[in-house]
Amino acid sequence: MKGNVLVGQSGGPTAVINSSLAGVYKTAMERGFTKVYGMRYGIQGFMDEQYVDMSEHIKNELDLELLKRTPSAFLGTCRYKLPEIHEDKAVYERIFELLDKLDIEVFIYIGGNDSMDTIRKLYDYSLLVGAKQKFVGCPKTIDNDLAITDHTPGFGSAAKYIATSTKEIIRDAMGFSYKKKNVNIIEVMGRNAGWLTGAAGLSRSEDCEGPDLIYLPEVAFDIAGFVQTIKDLLEKKDVIVAVVSEGIKTPEGKYVCEYTAGSSTTDAFGHIQMTGTASYLAQLVQSELGCKTRAIELSTLQRAAAHMASRVDVDEAFSVGGATIKAADEGSSGVMVVIDRVSDDPYQSTTHVFDVHRIANDEKVVPRKWINKAGNYVTEEFLDYVRPLIQGHYTPMMVEGLPRHLNVNMKDYDWVTDTKSKK
Amino acid sequence: MKGNVLVGQSGGPTAVINSSLAGVYKTAMERGFTKVYGMRYGIQGFMDEQYVDMSEHIKNELDLELLKRTPSAFLGTCRYKLPEIHEDKAVYERIFELLDKLDIEVFIYIGGNDSMDTIRKLYDYSLLVGAKQKFVGCPKTIDNDLAITDHTPGFGSAAKYIATSTKEIIRDAMGFSYKKKNVNIIEVMGRNAGWLTGAAGLSRSEDCEGPDLIYLPEVAFDIAGFVQTIKDLLEKKDVIVAVVSEGIKTPEGKYVCEYTAGSSTTDAFGHIQMTGTASYLAQLVQSELGCKTRAIELSTLQRAAAHMASRVDVDEAFSVGGATIKAADEGSSGVMVVIDRVSDDPYQSTTHVFDVHRIANDEKVVPRKWINKAGNYVTEEFLDYVRPLIQGHYTPMMVEGLPRHLNVNMKDYDWVTDTKSKK
Repeated sequence: MKGNVLVGQSGGPTAVINSSLAGVYKTAMERGFTKVYGMRYGIQGFMDEQYVDMSEHIKNELDLELLKRTPSAFLGTCRYKLPEIHEDKAVYERIFELLDKLDIEVFIYIGGNDSMDTIRKLYDYSLLVGAKQKFVGCPKTIDNDLAITDHTPGFGSAAKYIATSTKEIIRDAMGFSYKKKNVNIIEVMGRNAGWLTGAAGLSRSEDCEGPDLIYLPEVAFDIAGFVQTIKDLLEKKDVIVAVVSEGIKTPEGKYVCEYTAGSSTTDAFGHIQMTGTASYLAQLVQSELGCKTRAIELSTLQRAAAHMASRVDVDEAFSVGGATIKAADEGSSGVMVVIDRVSDDPYQSTTHVFDVHRIANDEKVVPRKWINKAGNYVTEEFLDYVRPLIQGHYTPMMVEGLPRHLNVNMKDYDWVTDTKSKK
Repeated sequence: MKGNVLVGQSGGPTAVINSSLAGVYKTAMERGFTKVYGMRYGIQGFMDEQYVDMSEHIKNELDLELLKRTPSAFLGTCRYKLPEIHEDKAVYERIFELLDKLDIEVFIYIGGNDSMDTIRKLYDYSLLVGAKQKFVGCPKTIDNDLAITDHTPGFGSAAKYIATSTKEIIRDAMGFSYKKKNVNIIEVMGRNAGWLTGAAGLSRSEDCEGPDLIYLPEVAFDIAGFVQTIKDLLEKKDVIVAVVSEGIKTPEGKYVCEYTAGSSTTDAFGHIQMTGTASYLAQLVQSELGCKTRAIELSTLQRAAAHMASRVDVDEAFSVGGATIKAADEGSSGVMVVIDRVSDDPYQSTTHVFDVHRIANDEKVVPRKWINKAGNYVTEEFLDYVRPLIQGHYTPMMVEGLPRHLNVNMKDYDWVTDTKSKK
């Protein structure tokens, strides 16, 4: 008889991270594992013995379908960096003691670069001490910046939401263009990789011209040159829509958002929390050129908008979740499941596993050849790469006019109900 | 044989303003009017003889359905205030000369308070000079602040988008709550009326606790009291979500957004263009309480997100558009079509017409009794009023993974295609 599975979610959530969780659960049950435990708030919560038995949350097939449609990390997430093994062995002893206590055979971690670093360290430690557990990474990030895998679950849905919103924002702006010009700057997530920012270009279609300018963090951003480009464009047309990554930097290496008055903070991995790039640029354009401007930050909605999830993405996330269990059950450890694109048209993909040491802490950025020469748009090749990933709609289950999500035990989330006066 | 219809769109667009346009077109054709002309950019464009023959854009039933799903003002919009008749008769002479030239019998204006002011003035002038045209207003505004009508087309879809996004934002924030607290402030449109802000409360359901705090512009906003409320709540829970109207004002009458560094501008009707309320409050809370905060502006998406339109709203907008033609055809003028709620459950509505003099320039705000005593939430009565209006989904027509909109002649919008390098 097989033992138990432990699964956690880590890093920034996506619209489909719970579809992977559903895939892990379903395949684990089908392959005869006894229980699936979920870490509350990733490895950080687990170290405090925060975990749940997933069967308490998934009681039937409907729950599983709801989970696939529920955005954000159902189990809670963390941004927690394990120490190097030689720095603090006690941490690892503690974790493996808990794994043994719960009779864990398979440890699945759903996350991005930083989460794969966790898989790498736990796997290395398991080799050191000859532990029985298998450690498998399940790729997840809206940023699409994981190495080796063709793309990451979460990216397609975020790209679909961004392209849809960009289309709607462009239409909105066009309506106001009579005898006055307006400049709209949309800010998209993506610290160092411009995959999501470039995806705004998908809005260009038979019924929409798409944005005029797209700036990825892969190319140095010349602030004065940007204002001049807008100025030149305004001589030819009345409505301008530019899409910028939150992570664009000047040639000197300073983030544009650092010019904003607001303070910036850093997380456990030393990444700057960014915001304010579009706002800074909009104010600059307004004061330099005197035209009406608007800054639009897509903010957390781009990673949480399950109501606009891509069916390809939801299905792949589910399938990749299942593939982690299959890989571990067949003896793999220290690996991440990666997606292979078999064909573009018709779109087909499969998975295999890859050594996590070659994935962790690496960042896949947009190749320079997929950005135009001027550094202000993506190429057709880029769009052809992304387009298959936004296809198909995963219809929300609507209850009382709103998308229904799988319920969480509110008390688990310290989410108390008596704080608001309802009369 | 009947003459022609002229229809225009004015003020801020909505997700369903084009559904009203479709309703006007369809009923006008069915009732035997010869042509339907559309003003480009409302009365402002029309005065420059900017108009189109709608039959060039709507060639079949599919086009009509696409138009119903197309956000923003298809014809373009304006914020243009006609002078009083005694101030500048020449303007009216010019407009009526154009109406006669185009053999217009019916003039329909789709808009909010300010647009009804245009209908009022044109109607009054028509009485003065004994003109033959009928002038009928078609209600439209996400703000739901028109008098007499139970609600306005556009409100339900914006409310649905806001409630859906609030649900997703809350889930996203909950995922990060382990051993750190976060405060999220969502900014919603609505200058003086809090209907949309209150609609965020619809996110409270079996699977979501809803926001903790909701601040409408109808109640004076005490900045220090707000920070104290957040501080008190943070002792009880880790994740706080507050929803604020862009138009909240201090007891002294100063808009909170005026505390922001950014400049504010005013439109032709003297309204301040607002932005930055959430951002100001988030920075304040962060500096006073030291916890992580995030400001989220729903921005233009709340009025443009046709992909989340409410079926009730799309259908009512269409039906109200048709009702304007029916009213004019049956002899009414100087009126606006208003919606009557016949029943809450099951929800049923009808329309009638009402004297536009009693609607124009009036603003319907949320009654104080629908806001709780503390002034920081809406009541169940408020939510029961809004809930029927967000029901049903109007499935977008998806092409290549994105919602398709009715094509516009890009050149009409000064939207040129040669500005971007595509290689």
